[in-house]
Amino acid sequence: MVRMGEFELLARIRERLPANGPRIHLGSGDDAAVSLPGGATATSVDALVDGVHFRRQLASPAQIGHKALATALSDLAAMGAEPGEAYVVLGLPADFSEEECIELLDGMTALAADTGTALAGGDLSRARELFLAITVVGHSSDPQAFVDRGGARPGDVLVLTGELGGASAGLELLEDPALEASLTGGAAEELRARQLEPTPRLRAGRALAQAGATAMIDLSDGLGADAGHIAQSSGVELRIEAEAVPIATGAKALRAAGGSDPWTLLNGGEDYELLASVPPARLDEAIRAVHDKGGTALTQVGEVLAGSGVEIRLPDCRLLEPGGFDQLA
Amino acid sequence: MVRMGEFELLARIRERLPANGPRIHLGSGDDAAVSLPGGATATSVDALVDGVHFRRQLASPAQIGHKALATALSDLAAMGAEPGEAYVVLGLPADFSEEECIELLDGMTALAADTGTALAGGDLSRARELFLAITVVGHSSDPQAFVDRGGARPGDVLVLTGELGGASAGLELLEDPALEASLTGGAAEELRARQLEPTPRLRAGRALAQAGATAMIDLSDGLGADAGHIAQSSGVELRIEAEAVPIATGAKALRAAGGSDPWTLLNGGEDYELLASVPPARLDEAIRAVHDKGGTALTQVGEVLAGSGVEIRLPDCRLLEPGGFDQLA
Repeated sequence: MVRMGEFELLARIRERLPANGPRIHLGSGDDAAVSLPGGATATSVDALVDGVHFRRQLASPAQIGHKALATALSDLAAMGAEPGEAYVVLGLPADFSEEECIELLDGMTALAADTGTALAGGDLSRARELFLAITVVGHSSDPQAFVDRGGARPGDVLVLTGELGGASAGLELLEDPALEASLTGGAAEELRARQLEPTPRLRAGRALAQAGATAMIDLSDGLGADAGHIAQSSGVELRIEAEAVPIATGAKALRAAGGSDPWTLLNGGEDYELLASVPPARLDEAIRAVHDKGGTALTQVGEVLAGSGVEIRLPDCRLLEPGGFDQLA
Repeated sequence: MVRMGEFELLARIRERLPANGPRIHLGSGDDAAVSLPGGATATSVDALVDGVHFRRQLASPAQIGHKALATALSDLAAMGAEPGEAYVVLGLPADFSEEECIELLDGMTALAADTGTALAGGDLSRARELFLAITVVGHSSDPQAFVDRGGARPGDVLVLTGELGGASAGLELLEDPALEASLTGGAAEELRARQLEPTPRLRAGRALAQAGATAMIDLSDGLGADAGHIAQSSGVELRIEAEAVPIATGAKALRAAGGSDPWTLLNGGEDYELLASVPPARLDEAIRAVHDKGGTALTQVGEVLAGSGVEIRLPDCRLLEPGGFDQLA
């Protein structure tokens, strides 16, 4: 159990929070935080539970804090929103010390500072297992500027930021450290970081929104499952060429060493890259914008067709089973 | 475990949600909900955990859903905010059925409809114990119209909505049903409802804000502890006359039958009444406004003095120990 009481711990947490930005009129410590949105807001909530979304044995408290905020902000990235505020609920079990709690918040605060997010409020409770619930609010002057999942049109091209497979390969490596022998250079460290400290693609998401993305989603559950959400919301078919998808360095070697099909990396989930549809006339502009403003590569991985569902085509004319992560499974 | 998968359960939940109000531009089902605040927002988050804030053996799923949203909305009431949106995180243990989950949401939806709150988004996760994290967003055209805890001034009078002690007496009754013999009329039913289905004082909170309340808080932790937050934030002393505080019918009889000091009812917490400071010149206006618009009584229970801390004076010149509920204790 944390040794100090709720109010003392809250006071200690508040001391460590960075100063609030100009949008916060009244910060943490009252009945509610008061902010001045000045436009449209995009709001998303995410739950992270020990044993489901992370494991305390495999991740440091700072990494758990980072990942919780990162996965929440990733939903704002997928809207093309500018991050604004985050609200944090922590369920603290008896064996989670007050130092671990501060370390967790420090991991979150560092990412908040990097992304321009204010930690504007929160709540603590005793719990049997460690859990976090993060609410993030993003902003835009115009609600039409947000990119939802429903605007993909036949003829659009499908684009993907960064690389896939790193997060699930990283988890494999954390669970079986002996697999590191199959990797060279700094690949192992990078794969673990993809699992433990994902980067929300906020700048890439805004660049894609400005470059005319018609639909967008972040890949949390796996390529097949998340592409399925765009296909369903937009009423279209998505066809993805597996060979076009960039795979994180070392991930295929690791999967081969572990004896499983490397293509399942695509559906491993938790990479938090963005999948978007873009009119073909704006593809070059999108690639340039994501490179220049988002600091990452944008790759064409497929196309949008009339129809329904998702087809992920493998090189030998096989199809990849959609698969994906179900939080209740 | 819920038998259906996450996406099926989410779809079933969404079907049951009422239509979104005019402020919601894009509702549940995308990466984020999009809303158009059109002024200042007050945002609050609340965690409720089985065994800490409720007990599954003592409350129905609908009551748990009601209480979770009610306690979150109570924070908006204490700001004088107009309720807008709620975002709901559910941690679902293996023995919580899909029917119980729907029933819980129905309890929440009913209160949302009563209060004009849109359930705009959420997330589900498997968990070892049932928990809820609720984020609520309230609105006002003017950020100065929100009432924080820091504006109480010496000379202000302290006022309280409704009655205290009902929630803690209700819990006593739920834990020891034999105590019902000490009560007459419908008192037992009413006390249980105060514990299981609290009413957020939203209309009373807005009436108090309009009647010039200088500081306001909702009584979740107990009169002494919550009054202490106003005293500290405002830099004043609060003096409360215990005899002036209206006590819920039957609560004193119940506590006497249980053999404990009836005055401890004041610090029992969970009554979700509002405590506010009001300039004396506006006291009559505040009483009338809370009666007419809030549908409840407003009672003067004390005064604001220069100094610090909280004094709760009992009839025989004793002082009540502040006490209060610590979520981490």
